[in-house]
Amino acid sequence: MFVIEVYDVNEKRVAKVLKVSRKYLYWVQNSVLEGEISEANFRRLKEELLEIIDLKEDSLIFYTFRTTKYSERQCFGVLKGGEETIF
Amino acid sequence: MFVIEVYDVNEKRVAKVLKVSRKYLYWVQNSVLEGEISEANFRRLKEELLEIIDLKEDSLIFYTFRTTKYSERQCFGVLKGGEETIF
Repeated sequence: MFVIEVYDVNEKRVAKVLKVSRKYLYWVQNSVLEGEISEANFRRLKEELLEIIDLKEDSLIFYTFRTTKYSERQCFGVLKGGEETIF
Repeated sequence: MFVIEVYDVNEKRVAKVLKVSRKYLYWVQNSVLEGEISEANFRRLKEELLEIIDLKEDSLIFYTFRTTKYSERQCFGVLKGGEETIF
């Protein structure tokens, strides 16, 4: 499945959240990652992130897609992410 | 169609980008909006935003989906957006 992760977390936790997220997904833009991921790895990603973030203060959203067939990504301006992705 | 907008723009332009984006989409989280939008309005949104952002410095990404049937949104922590959405 394809996943887009967006997060809005306290400055103190940003580095840790990014480091864990980059083990599983591609960094695309400030607090946005995306990529193809297995169900098992998606579970691990969520478990690891939920140990880091403060549920009362931080916000973490995953958009999951069983297929990208009906989807498209349009980028304008500076492409900040490095790696190529499925989209 | 359903659209997710993520942006990473210079502090000077954030307020303008958010103001324009909120005319068409729901604010979900810091620099993330989403919502159902017509092709015509999506064109207008892009035109208005492209007049604001600096293509050499800012980053603007749209994920578009012709259907949300194969998709799901999982939120953890604080739900920052106000309005309910299609997801």
